[in-house]
Amino acid sequence: MGVGLLGGSIGLAYRSRVKDCHVVGYGHRRESLETARRMGAVDEISTDPLEAVREASLVILCTPVSLLSPLLKQIAPGLTEGAVVTDVGSTKSSVVESAERLMPPIAHFVGSHPMAGSEKRGVQFARTNLFDTALCILTPTSNTMPDALRRVDEFWQLLGMRTVRLSPAEHDRRLAEVSHLPHALAAALVLMSEQGSLDLSGKGFADLTRIAGGDPGLWRDILLDNRDNVRASIARLRDQLEGLQSLLDAGDAEGLHRWLATAAARRQAMIERNQLADGASPPGG
Amino acid sequence: MGVGLLGGSIGLAYRSRVKDCHVVGYGHRRESLETARRMGAVDEISTDPLEAVREASLVILCTPVSLLSPLLKQIAPGLTEGAVVTDVGSTKSSVVESAERLMPPIAHFVGSHPMAGSEKRGVQFARTNLFDTALCILTPTSNTMPDALRRVDEFWQLLGMRTVRLSPAEHDRRLAEVSHLPHALAAALVLMSEQGSLDLSGKGFADLTRIAGGDPGLWRDILLDNRDNVRASIARLRDQLEGLQSLLDAGDAEGLHRWLATAAARRQAMIERNQLADGASPPGG
Repeated sequence: MGVGLLGGSIGLAYRSRVKDCHVVGYGHRRESLETARRMGAVDEISTDPLEAVREASLVILCTPVSLLSPLLKQIAPGLTEGAVVTDVGSTKSSVVESAERLMPPIAHFVGSHPMAGSEKRGVQFARTNLFDTALCILTPTSNTMPDALRRVDEFWQLLGMRTVRLSPAEHDRRLAEVSHLPHALAAALVLMSEQGSLDLSGKGFADLTRIAGGDPGLWRDILLDNRDNVRASIARLRDQLEGLQSLLDAGDAEGLHRWLATAAARRQAMIERNQLADGASPPGG
Repeated sequence: MGVGLLGGSIGLAYRSRVKDCHVVGYGHRRESLETARRMGAVDEISTDPLEAVREASLVILCTPVSLLSPLLKQIAPGLTEGAVVTDVGSTKSSVVESAERLMPPIAHFVGSHPMAGSEKRGVQFARTNLFDTALCILTPTSNTMPDALRRVDEFWQLLGMRTVRLSPAEHDRRLAEVSHLPHALAAALVLMSEQGSLDLSGKGFADLTRIAGGDPGLWRDILLDNRDNVRASIARLRDQLEGLQSLLDAGDAEGLHRWLATAAARRQAMIERNQLADGASPPGG
Protein backbone atom coordinates (compact mmCIF):
# COMPACT_ATOMS: atom_id res chain seq x y z
CA MET A 1 0.00 0.00 0.00
CA GLY A 2 1.62 3.23 -1.19
CA VAL A 3 3.32 2.59 -4.50
CA GLY A 4 6.34 4.90 -4.52
CA LEU A 5 10.02 4.08 -4.73
CA LEU A 6 9.89 1.49 -1.93
CA GLY A 7 6.46 0.01 -2.63
CA GLY A 8 7.21 -0.21 -6.34
CA SER A 9 10.58 -1.86 -5.74
CA ILE A 10 8.99 -4.38 -3.38
CA GLY A 11 6.47 -5.28 -6.09
CA LEU A 12 9.17 -5.61 -8.76
CA ALA A 13 11.45 -7.71 -6.54
CA TYR A 14 8.65 -9.97 -5.27
CA ARG A 15 7.04 -10.57 -8.66
CA SER A 16 10.42 -11.37 -10.23
CA ARG A 17 11.03 -14.07 -7.60
CA VAL A 18 7.60 -15.54 -6.96
CA LYS A 19 5.69 -16.71 -10.01
CA ASP A 20 2.42 -17.68 -8.33
CA CYS A 21 1.52 -14.40 -6.66
CA HIS A 22 -0.97 -11.56 -6.94
CA VAL A 23 0.20 -8.10 -5.90
CA VAL A 24 -2.38 -5.35 -5.40
CA GLY A 25 -1.09 -1.78 -5.37
CA TYR A 26 -3.03 0.83 -3.43
CA GLY A 27 -2.56 4.58 -3.65
CA HIS A 28 -4.54 7.76 -4.16
CA ARG A 29 -2.72 8.96 -7.28
CA ARG A 30 -4.14 7.09 -10.28
CA GLU A 31 -1.16 8.11 -12.42
CA SER A 32 1.44 6.51 -10.10
CA LEU A 33 -0.65 3.37 -9.90
CA GLU A 34 -0.85 3.12 -13.70
CA THR A 35 2.93 3.60 -13.93
CA ALA A 36 3.42 0.84 -11.34
CA ARG A 37 1.27 -1.54 -13.36
CA ARG A 38 3.00 -0.67 -16.61
CA MET A 39 6.41 -1.31 -14.96
CA GLY A 40 5.25 -4.71 -13.76
CA ALA A 41 5.43 -3.78 -10.07
CA VAL A 42 1.81 -4.80 -9.39
CA ASP A 43 -0.80 -7.12 -10.88
CA GLU A 44 -3.78 -5.02 -9.89
CA ILE A 45 -4.33 -1.44 -8.75
CA SER A 46 -6.88 0.15 -6.45
CA THR A 47 -7.62 3.55 -4.97
CA ASP A 48 -9.90 2.01 -2.32
CA PRO A 49 -7.93 0.81 0.74
CA LEU A 50 -10.66 -1.60 1.92
CA GLU A 51 -10.92 -3.20 -1.48
CA ALA A 52 -7.12 -3.42 -1.79
CA VAL A 53 -6.67 -5.51 1.38
CA ARG A 54 -9.81 -7.66 1.04
CA GLU A 55 -8.04 -10.87 -0.04
CA ALA A 56 -4.49 -10.02 1.06
CA SER A 57 -2.60 -12.48 3.25
CA LEU A 58 0.30 -10.01 3.58
CA VAL A 59 -0.15 -6.24 3.64
CA ILE A 60 2.89 -3.93 3.41
CA LEU A 61 2.31 -0.32 4.36
CA CYS A 62 4.76 1.89 2.45
CA THR A 63 3.78 5.36 3.60
CA PRO A 64 5.61 8.06 5.53
CA VAL A 65 5.52 7.44 9.30
CA SER A 66 2.93 10.17 9.90
CA LEU A 67 0.37 8.61 7.53
CA LEU A 68 0.61 5.12 8.94
CA SER A 69 -2.02 5.32 11.66
CA PRO A 70 -4.72 6.93 9.51
CA LEU A 71 -4.17 4.27 6.84
CA LEU A 72 -4.26 1.45 9.40
CA LYS A 73 -7.58 2.75 10.70
CA GLN A 74 -8.97 2.70 7.20
CA ILE A 75 -7.91 -0.85 6.35
CA ALA A 76 -8.53 -2.50 9.74
CA PRO A 77 -12.20 -3.40 9.07
CA GLY A 78 -11.31 -4.98 5.71
CA LEU A 79 -8.48 -7.27 6.80
CA THR A 80 -9.02 -10.98 6.28
CA GLU A 81 -8.63 -13.71 8.93
CA GLY A 82 -4.93 -14.36 9.65
CA ALA A 83 -3.69 -11.45 7.55
CA VAL A 84 -0.20 -10.23 8.41
CA VAL A 85 0.50 -6.50 8.23
CA THR A 86 3.92 -4.88 8.20
CA ASP A 87 5.38 -1.48 7.35
CA VAL A 88 8.62 0.16 6.17
CA GLY A 89 8.81 3.10 8.60
CA SER A 90 12.15 4.60 9.68
CA THR A 91 11.03 4.96 13.31
CA LYS A 92 9.41 2.13 15.19
CA SER A 93 8.33 2.77 18.81
CA SER A 94 5.32 4.94 18.11
CA VAL A 95 4.47 3.13 14.88
CA VAL A 96 4.45 -0.33 16.44
CA GLU A 97 2.53 0.85 19.48
CA SER A 98 -0.28 2.41 17.49
CA ALA A 99 -0.34 -0.41 14.93
CA GLU A 100 -0.77 -3.03 17.66
CA ARG A 101 -3.57 -0.93 19.14
CA LEU A 102 -5.39 -0.50 15.83
CA MET A 103 -5.04 -4.09 14.58
CA PRO A 104 -8.25 -6.20 14.70
CA PRO A 105 -7.94 -9.49 16.69
CA ILE A 106 -8.00 -11.60 13.51
CA ALA A 107 -4.90 -9.92 12.01
CA HIS A 108 -1.26 -9.56 13.11
CA PHE A 109 1.18 -6.67 12.92
CA VAL A 110 4.99 -6.92 12.69
CA GLY A 111 7.14 -3.79 12.43
CA SER A 112 9.81 -3.69 9.68
CA HIS A 113 12.45 -1.23 8.61
CA PRO A 114 14.05 -2.24 5.31
CA MET A 115 17.16 -0.05 5.16
CA ALA A 116 17.20 0.60 1.46
CA GLY A 117 16.09 3.57 -0.52
CA SER A 118 17.20 6.63 -2.33
CA GLU A 119 16.86 10.38 -2.15
CA LYS A 120 14.74 9.98 -5.29
CA ARG A 121 10.98 9.77 -4.90
CA GLY A 122 8.32 8.07 -6.98
CA VAL A 123 7.59 4.69 -8.48
CA GLN A 124 9.48 5.60 -11.67
CA PHE A 125 12.74 5.14 -9.71
CA ALA A 126 11.73 1.71 -8.38
CA ARG A 127 14.06 -1.16 -9.19
CA THR A 128 14.17 -4.91 -8.69
CA ASN A 129 17.54 -4.96 -6.93
CA LEU A 130 16.94 -2.14 -4.44
CA PHE A 131 17.04 -4.55 -1.50
CA ASP A 132 19.98 -6.76 -2.50
CA THR A 133 22.26 -7.42 0.50
CA ALA A 134 20.74 -4.49 2.44
CA LEU A 135 19.65 -4.89 6.04
CA CYS A 136 16.05 -5.16 7.25
CA ILE A 137 15.35 -4.64 10.94
CA LEU A 138 12.29 -6.43 12.35
CA THR A 139 10.91 -5.07 15.61
CA PRO A 140 8.80 -7.71 17.37
CA THR A 141 7.25 -7.10 20.81
CA SER A 142 5.74 -9.41 23.42
CA ASN A 143 2.48 -9.10 21.46
CA THR A 144 3.94 -10.34 18.20
CA MET A 145 2.66 -13.67 16.89
CA PRO A 146 5.71 -15.90 16.14
CA ASP A 147 4.18 -17.20 12.90
CA ALA A 148 3.59 -13.68 11.65
CA LEU A 149 7.15 -12.68 12.54
CA ARG A 150 8.53 -15.68 10.63
CA ARG A 151 6.33 -14.83 7.68
CA VAL A 152 7.58 -11.25 7.49
CA ASP A 153 11.20 -12.31 8.05
CA GLU A 154 11.01 -14.78 5.15
CA PHE A 155 9.42 -12.14 2.96
CA TRP A 156 12.31 -9.67 3.29
CA GLN A 157 14.89 -12.43 2.93
CA LEU A 158 13.17 -13.53 -0.26
CA LEU A 159 13.73 -9.99 -1.57
CA GLY A 160 17.47 -10.39 -0.92
CA MET A 161 17.76 -8.69 2.45
CA ARG A 162 19.62 -9.72 5.57
CA THR A 163 17.32 -9.49 8.60
CA VAL A 164 17.92 -8.72 12.28
CA ARG A 165 15.51 -8.37 15.18
CA LEU A 166 15.52 -5.54 17.72
CA SER A 167 12.94 -4.13 20.10
CA PRO A 168 11.26 -0.96 18.75
CA ALA A 169 13.01 1.08 21.48
CA GLU A 170 16.46 -0.27 20.65
CA HIS A 171 15.83 0.26 16.93
CA ASP A 172 15.02 3.91 17.53
CA ARG A 173 17.98 4.47 19.83
CA ARG A 174 20.47 2.93 17.41
CA LEU A 175 19.04 4.56 14.30
CA ALA A 176 19.27 7.97 15.98
CA GLU A 177 23.06 7.43 16.07
CA VAL A 178 23.73 6.10 12.59
CA SER A 179 20.92 7.67 10.60
CA HIS A 180 18.81 10.39 12.18
CA LEU A 181 21.52 12.50 13.85
CA PRO A 182 23.84 12.13 10.82
CA HIS A 183 21.04 13.42 8.63
CA ALA A 184 20.46 16.43 10.87
CA LEU A 185 24.21 17.00 11.02
CA ALA A 186 24.57 17.02 7.25
CA ALA A 187 21.86 19.69 7.11
CA ALA A 188 23.53 21.66 9.92
CA LEU A 189 26.88 21.62 8.08
CA VAL A 190 25.31 23.02 4.93
CA LEU A 191 23.42 25.68 6.90
CA MET A 192 26.36 26.83 9.05
CA SER A 193 28.73 27.33 6.11
CA GLU A 194 29.00 30.71 4.43
CA GLN A 195 28.26 30.86 0.72
CA GLY A 196 31.92 31.67 0.00
CA SER A 197 32.91 28.47 1.77
CA LEU A 198 30.34 26.31 -0.02
CA ASP A 199 31.79 27.65 -3.29
CA LEU A 200 35.07 25.95 -2.38
CA SER A 201 33.57 22.61 -1.43
CA GLY A 202 34.58 19.48 -3.26
CA LYS A 203 33.72 15.82 -3.45
CA GLY A 204 34.40 15.12 0.22
CA PHE A 205 31.88 17.71 1.40
CA ALA A 206 29.36 16.56 -1.22
CA ASP A 207 29.66 12.97 0.02
CA LEU A 208 29.40 14.05 3.61
CA THR A 209 26.24 16.05 3.07
CA ARG A 210 24.57 13.80 0.49
CA ILE A 211 21.92 12.61 2.94
CA ALA A 212 20.88 16.23 3.49
CA GLY A 213 19.35 15.99 0.01
CA GLY A 214 16.55 13.73 1.30
CA ASP A 215 12.85 14.61 1.38
CA PRO A 216 12.30 17.32 4.06
CA GLY A 217 8.78 16.12 4.92
CA LEU A 218 9.87 12.56 5.49
CA TRP A 219 12.83 13.60 7.64
CA ARG A 220 10.82 16.16 9.61
CA ASP A 221 8.51 13.34 10.69
CA ILE A 222 11.40 11.01 11.54
CA LEU A 223 13.25 13.60 13.63
CA LEU A 224 10.10 14.68 15.47
CA ASP A 225 8.97 11.13 16.13
CA ASN A 226 12.39 10.10 17.46
CA ARG A 227 13.25 13.38 19.12
CA ASP A 228 14.23 11.97 22.52
CA ASN A 229 16.88 9.71 21.03
CA VAL A 230 18.06 12.42 18.63
CA ARG A 231 18.48 14.74 21.61
CA ALA A 232 20.55 12.13 23.45
CA SER A 233 22.69 11.64 20.34
CA ILE A 234 23.29 15.37 20.00
CA ALA A 235 24.49 15.39 23.61
CA ARG A 236 26.91 12.53 22.95
CA LEU A 237 28.21 14.23 19.82
CA ARG A 238 28.77 17.39 21.83
CA ASP A 239 30.84 15.36 24.31
CA GLN A 240 33.01 14.10 21.47
CA LEU A 241 33.48 17.60 20.08
CA GLU A 242 34.42 18.88 23.54
CA GLY A 243 36.98 16.12 23.79
CA LEU A 244 38.38 17.20 20.44
CA GLN A 245 38.40 20.81 21.57
CA SER A 246 40.44 19.91 24.65
CA LEU A 247 42.99 18.08 22.52
CA LEU A 248 43.30 21.10 20.22
CA ASP A 249 43.54 23.58 23.10
CA ALA A 250 46.26 21.50 24.74
CA GLY A 251 48.08 21.07 21.42
CA ASP A 252 48.06 17.34 22.25
CA ALA A 253 49.39 15.95 18.95
CA GLU A 254 49.66 12.41 20.26
CA GLY A 255 46.14 12.36 21.71
CA LEU A 256 44.72 13.87 18.52
CA HIS A 257 46.48 11.27 16.39
CA ARG A 258 45.02 8.52 18.58
CA TRP A 259 41.54 10.04 18.36
CA LEU A 260 41.69 10.17 14.54
CA ALA A 261 43.35 6.76 14.17
CA THR A 262 40.74 5.12 16.39
CA ALA A 263 37.94 6.61 14.30
CA ALA A 264 39.57 5.50 11.02
CA ALA A 265 40.12 1.96 12.30
CA ARG A 266 36.61 1.69 13.72
CA ARG A 267 35.12 2.85 10.45
CA GLN A 268 37.23 0.42 8.44
CA ALA A 269 36.07 -2.45 10.64
CA MET A 270 32.47 -1.33 10.15
CA ILE A 271 32.86 -1.22 6.35
CA GLU A 272 34.23 -4.76 6.34
CA ARG A 273 31.74 -6.21 8.81
CA ASN A 274 28.75 -4.67 7.08
CA GLN A 275 30.12 -5.47 3.62
CA LEU A 276 29.67 -1.91 2.45
CA ALA A 277 31.13 -0.72 -0.83
CA ASP A 278 33.62 2.05 -0.15
CA GLY A 279 34.96 2.97 -3.54
CA ALA A 280 34.86 6.74 -3.72
CA SER A 281 37.90 8.68 -2.59
CA PRO A 282 37.87 11.72 -0.32
CA PRO A 283 40.24 14.65 -0.69
CA GLY A 284 43.46 14.44 1.26
CA GLY A 285 43.00 17.78 2.97
CA MET B 1 59.60 17.24 -3.90
CA GLY B 2 57.87 14.40 -2.06
CA VAL B 3 56.74 11.83 -4.59
CA GLY B 4 53.60 10.33 -3.08
CA LEU B 5 50.05 10.31 -4.41
CA LEU B 6 49.99 14.06 -5.08
CA GLY B 7 53.58 14.52 -6.21
CA GLY B 8 53.37 11.47 -8.44
CA SER B 9 50.10 12.61 -9.99
CA ILE B 10 51.55 16.06 -10.66
CA GLY B 11 54.48 14.45 -12.47
CA LEU B 12 52.22 12.18 -14.52
CA ALA B 13 49.85 15.01 -15.44
CA TYR B 14 52.61 17.49 -16.28
CA ARG B 15 54.71 15.09 -18.32
CA SER B 16 51.67 13.93 -20.31
CA ARG B 17 50.92 17.55 -21.28
CA VAL B 18 54.33 19.12 -21.73
CA LYS B 19 56.73 17.34 -24.03
CA ASP B 20 59.80 19.52 -23.51
CA CYS B 21 60.22 19.25 -19.73
CA HIS B 22 62.47 17.69 -17.13
CA VAL B 23 60.88 16.61 -13.84
CA VAL B 24 63.13 15.76 -10.90
CA GLY B 25 61.56 13.77 -8.06
CA TYR B 26 63.00 14.14 -4.59
CA GLY B 27 62.25 11.90 -1.62
CA HIS B 28 64.05 9.92 1.06
CA ARG B 29 62.61 6.51 0.19
CA ARG B 30 64.58 5.11 -2.75
CA GLU B 31 61.85 2.54 -3.45
CA SER B 32 59.09 5.14 -3.94
CA LEU B 33 61.37 7.16 -6.19
CA GLU B 34 62.12 4.11 -8.33
CA THR B 35 58.39 3.38 -8.59
CA ALA B 36 57.76 6.99 -9.63
CA ARG B 37 60.37 6.73 -12.38
CA ARG B 38 59.03 3.40 -13.59
CA MET B 39 55.49 4.87 -13.76
CA GLY B 40 56.74 7.81 -15.81
CA ALA B 41 55.96 10.39 -13.14
CA VAL B 42 59.52 11.78 -13.13
CA ASP B 43 62.51 11.98 -15.47
CA GLU B 44 65.14 11.92 -12.76
CA ILE B 45 65.23 11.02 -9.09
CA SER B 46 67.27 12.26 -6.17
CA THR B 47 67.53 11.75 -2.43
CA ASP B 48 69.52 14.98 -2.02
CA PRO B 49 67.23 18.05 -1.72
CA LEU B 50 69.95 20.52 -2.73
CA GLU B 51 70.81 18.54 -5.81
CA ALA B 52 67.12 18.12 -6.70
CA VAL B 53 66.40 21.86 -6.85
CA ARG B 54 69.72 22.98 -8.38
CA GLU B 55 68.37 23.68 -11.88
CA ALA B 56 64.67 23.86 -11.13
CA SER B 57 62.68 26.86 -12.33
CA LEU B 58 59.56 25.58 -10.49
CA VAL B 59 59.70 23.65 -7.22
CA ILE B 60 56.56 21.98 -5.85
CA LEU B 61 56.70 20.89 -2.22
CA CYS B 62 54.39 17.90 -1.73
CA THR B 63 54.90 17.08 1.93
CA PRO B 64 52.62 17.13 4.96
CA VAL B 65 52.23 20.63 6.42
CA SER B 66 54.47 19.86 9.40
CA LEU B 67 57.47 18.91 7.22
CA LEU B 68 57.31 21.94 4.98
CA SER B 69 59.50 24.35 6.96
CA PRO B 70 62.31 21.87 7.56
CA LEU B 71 62.37 21.01 3.86
CA LEU B 72 62.33 24.68 2.84
CA LYS B 73 65.31 25.35 5.09
CA GLN B 74 67.18 22.53 3.41
CA ILE B 75 66.56 23.62 -0.17
CA ALA B 76 66.81 27.41 0.31
CA PRO B 77 70.59 27.62 -0.28
CA GLY B 78 70.30 25.59 -3.49
CA LEU B 79 67.55 27.51 -5.25
CA THR B 80 68.45 29.09 -8.55
CA GLU B 81 67.92 32.76 -9.52
CA GLY B 82 64.23 33.44 -10.22
CA ALA B 83 63.04 30.01 -9.04
CA VAL B 84 59.37 29.80 -8.08
CA VAL B 85 58.43 27.59 -5.13
CA THR B 86 54.91 26.44 -4.27
CA ASP B 87 53.34 23.78 -2.05
CA VAL B 88 50.18 21.68 -1.77
CA GLY B 89 49.40 22.11 1.95
CA SER B 90 45.85 21.96 3.30
CA THR B 91 46.40 24.91 5.65
CA LYS B 92 47.96 28.14 4.48
CA SER B 93 48.47 30.92 7.09
CA SER B 94 51.38 29.38 8.98
CA VAL B 95 52.80 27.71 5.87
CA VAL B 96 52.89 30.89 3.78
CA GLU B 97 54.25 32.96 6.64
CA SER B 98 57.18 30.66 7.30
CA ALA B 99 57.82 30.03 3.61
CA GLU B 100 58.09 33.76 2.90
CA ARG B 101 60.46 34.09 5.83
CA LEU B 102 62.68 31.21 4.72
CA MET B 103 62.81 32.06 1.03
CA PRO B 104 66.09 33.56 -0.24
CA PRO B 105 65.76 36.96 -2.01
CA ILE B 106 66.47 35.42 -5.44
CA ALA B 107 63.48 33.02 -5.27
CA HIS B 108 59.72 33.47 -4.89
CA PHE B 109 57.10 31.56 -2.92
CA VAL B 110 53.40 31.24 -3.79
CA GLY B 111 51.05 29.16 -1.61
CA SER B 112 48.82 26.60 -3.34
CA HIS B 113 46.15 24.18 -2.20
CA PRO B 114 45.14 21.84 -5.01
CA MET B 115 41.90 20.28 -3.70
CA ALA B 116 42.36 16.82 -5.11
CA GLY B 117 43.52 13.65 -3.48
CA SER B 118 42.44 10.42 -1.98
CA GLU B 119 42.47 8.58 1.32
CA LYS B 120 45.01 6.34 -0.42
CA ARG B 121 48.69 7.05 0.15
CA GLY B 122 51.72 6.41 -2.00
CA VAL B 123 52.92 7.01 -5.52
CA GLN B 124 51.44 3.71 -6.69
CA PHE B 125 47.97 5.33 -6.51
CA ALA B 126 49.07 8.38 -8.54
CA ARG B 127 47.11 9.06 -11.71
CA THR B 128 47.24 11.48 -14.61
CA ASN B 129 43.67 12.75 -14.21
CA LEU B 130 43.66 13.36 -10.44
CA PHE B 131 43.34 17.12 -10.94
CA ASP B 132 40.77 17.23 -13.74
CA THR B 133 38.14 19.92 -13.05
CA ALA B 134 39.13 20.11 -9.36
CA LEU B 135 39.72 23.43 -7.65
CA CYS B 136 43.12 24.87 -6.74
CA ILE B 137 43.25 27.74 -4.26
CA LEU B 138 46.20 30.11 -4.58
CA THR B 139 47.00 32.24 -1.54
CA PRO B 140 49.05 35.30 -2.55
CA THR B 141 50.02 37.97 -0.01
CA SER B 142 51.32 41.52 -0.37
CA ASN B 143 54.80 39.96 -0.66
CA THR B 144 53.91 37.77 -3.62
CA MET B 145 55.64 38.56 -6.91
CA PRO B 146 52.92 38.89 -9.62
CA ASP B 147 54.97 36.99 -12.19
CA ALA B 148 55.47 34.08 -9.80
CA LEU B 149 51.75 34.02 -9.01
CA ARG B 150 50.89 33.92 -12.70
CA ARG B 151 53.41 31.16 -13.26
CA VAL B 152 51.91 28.97 -10.51
CA ASP B 153 48.36 29.75 -11.64
CA GLU B 154 49.14 28.65 -15.19
CA PHE B 155 50.82 25.52 -13.90
CA TRP B 156 47.73 24.25 -12.07
CA GLN B 157 45.47 25.23 -14.95
CA LEU B 158 47.71 23.26 -17.29
CA LEU B 159 47.06 20.23 -15.08
CA GLY B 160 43.31 20.68 -15.62
CA MET B 161 42.39 22.58 -12.47
CA ARG B 162 40.20 25.62 -11.95
CA THR B 163 42.02 28.22 -9.86
CA VAL B 164 40.83 30.85 -7.38
CA ARG B 165 42.78 33.29 -5.20
CA LEU B 166 42.20 33.90 -1.50
CA SER B 167 44.29 35.33 1.30
CA PRO B 168 45.88 32.64 3.49
CA ALA B 169 43.61 33.69 6.38
CA GLU B 170 40.43 33.45 4.31
CA HIS B 171 41.54 30.10 2.91
CA ASP B 172 41.96 28.68 6.41
CA ARG B 173 38.68 30.10 7.66
CA ARG B 174 36.67 28.70 4.73
CA LEU B 175 38.40 25.33 4.68
CA ALA B 176 37.67 24.90 8.37
CA GLU B 177 33.97 24.97 7.44
CA VAL B 178 33.90 22.72 4.40
CA SER B 179 36.83 20.41 5.08
CA HIS B 180 38.48 20.43 8.50
CA LEU B 181 35.41 20.48 10.74
CA PRO B 182 33.58 17.97 8.50
CA HIS B 183 36.54 15.64 8.84
CA ALA B 184 36.57 15.94 12.63
CA LEU B 185 32.81 15.47 12.65
CA ALA B 186 32.98 12.28 10.64
CA ALA B 187 35.45 10.94 13.19
CA ALA B 188 33.26 12.09 16.08
CA LEU B 189 30.22 10.33 14.59
CA VAL B 190 32.11 7.05 14.33
CA LEU B 191 33.48 7.41 17.87
CA MET B 192 30.18 8.35 19.56
CA SER B 193 28.21 5.46 18.08
CA GLU B 194 27.93 2.21 20.00
CA GLN B 195 29.18 -0.92 18.29
CA GLY B 196 25.63 -2.26 18.07
CA SER B 197 24.63 0.87 16.18
CA LEU B 198 27.58 0.74 13.78
CA ASP B 199 26.51 -2.83 12.99
CA LEU B 200 23.27 -1.40 11.58
CA SER B 201 24.88 1.30 9.49
CA GLY B 202 24.39 1.37 5.75
CA LYS B 203 25.57 3.25 2.69
CA GLY B 204 24.43 6.65 3.95
CA PHE B 205 26.53 6.44 7.09
CA ALA B 206 29.49 5.06 5.13
CA ASP B 207 29.31 8.02 2.72
CA LEU B 208 28.97 10.47 5.54
CA THR B 209 32.00 9.18 7.40
CA ARG B 210 34.21 8.35 4.40
CA ILE B 211 36.58 11.25 5.05
CA ALA B 212 37.21 9.82 8.54
CA GLY B 213 39.23 7.15 6.72
CA GLY B 214 41.98 9.66 5.89
CA ASP B 215 45.55 9.56 7.19
CA PRO B 216 45.51 10.39 10.95
CA GLY B 217 48.95 12.02 10.90
CA LEU B 218 48.06 14.34 8.05
CA TRP B 219 44.78 15.35 9.65
CA ARG B 220 46.27 15.78 13.11
CA ASP B 221 48.62 18.39 11.63
CA ILE B 222 45.83 20.13 9.73
CA LEU B 223 43.52 20.35 12.74
CA LEU B 224 46.28 21.55 15.06
CA ASP B 225 47.57 24.11 12.58
CA ASN B 226 44.08 25.51 11.92
CA ARG B 227 42.76 25.06 15.44
CA ASP B 228 41.41 28.61 15.89
CA ASN B 229 39.20 28.37 12.83
CA VAL B 230 38.17 24.81 13.69
CA ARG B 231 37.16 26.04 17.14
CA ALA B 232 35.04 28.80 15.60
CA SER B 233 33.40 26.29 13.26
CA ILE B 234 32.58 23.96 16.13
CA ALA B 235 30.89 26.89 17.87
CA ARG B 236 28.81 27.66 14.79
CA LEU B 237 27.84 24.03 14.39
CA ARG B 238 26.76 23.97 18.03
CA ASP B 239 24.52 26.99 17.34
CA GLN B 240 22.88 25.12 14.45
CA LEU B 241 22.34 22.04 16.61
CA GLU B 242 20.83 24.17 19.36
CA GLY B 243 18.46 25.67 16.81
CA LEU B 244 17.47 22.18 15.75
CA GLN B 245 17.03 21.16 19.39
CA SER B 246 14.64 24.09 19.96
CA LEU B 247 12.57 23.09 16.94
CA LEU B 248 12.36 19.51 18.22
CA ASP B 249 11.52 20.58 21.79
CA ALA B 250 8.77 22.85 20.52
CA GLY B 251 7.47 20.17 18.16
CA ASP B 252 7.66 22.87 15.47
CA ALA B 253 6.91 20.75 12.39
CA GLU B 254 6.73 23.74 10.07
CA GLY B 255 10.00 25.25 11.27
CA LEU B 256 11.74 21.88 11.07
CA HIS B 257 10.50 21.36 7.54
CA ARG B 258 11.84 24.78 6.57
CA TRP B 259 15.21 24.04 8.22
CA LEU B 260 15.58 20.76 6.31
CA ALA B 261 14.26 22.15 3.02
CA THR B 262 16.64 25.12 3.17
CA ALA B 263 19.58 22.78 3.72
CA ALA B 264 18.53 20.49 0.85
CA ALA B 265 18.07 23.44 -1.55
CA ARG B 266 21.36 25.04 -0.52
CA ARG B 267 23.22 21.78 -1.04
CA GLN B 268 21.59 21.25 -4.45
CA ALA B 269 22.64 24.74 -5.55
CA MET B 270 26.18 23.99 -4.35
CA ILE B 271 26.34 20.73 -6.30
CA GLU B 272 25.26 22.51 -9.46
CA ARG B 273 27.48 25.56 -9.04
CA ASN B 274 30.56 23.50 -8.24
CA GLN B 275 29.76 20.92 -10.91
CA LEU B 276 30.10 18.05 -8.47
CA ALA B 277 29.05 14.55 -9.40
CA ASP B 278 26.26 13.43 -7.08
CA GLY B 279 25.45 9.96 -8.27
CA ALA B 280 25.21 7.77 -5.17
CA SER B 281 21.90 7.40 -3.43
CA PRO B 282 21.35 7.63 0.32
CA PRO B 283 18.79 5.57 2.21
CA GLY B 284 15.33 7.06 2.57
CA GLY B 285 15.31 6.79 6.35
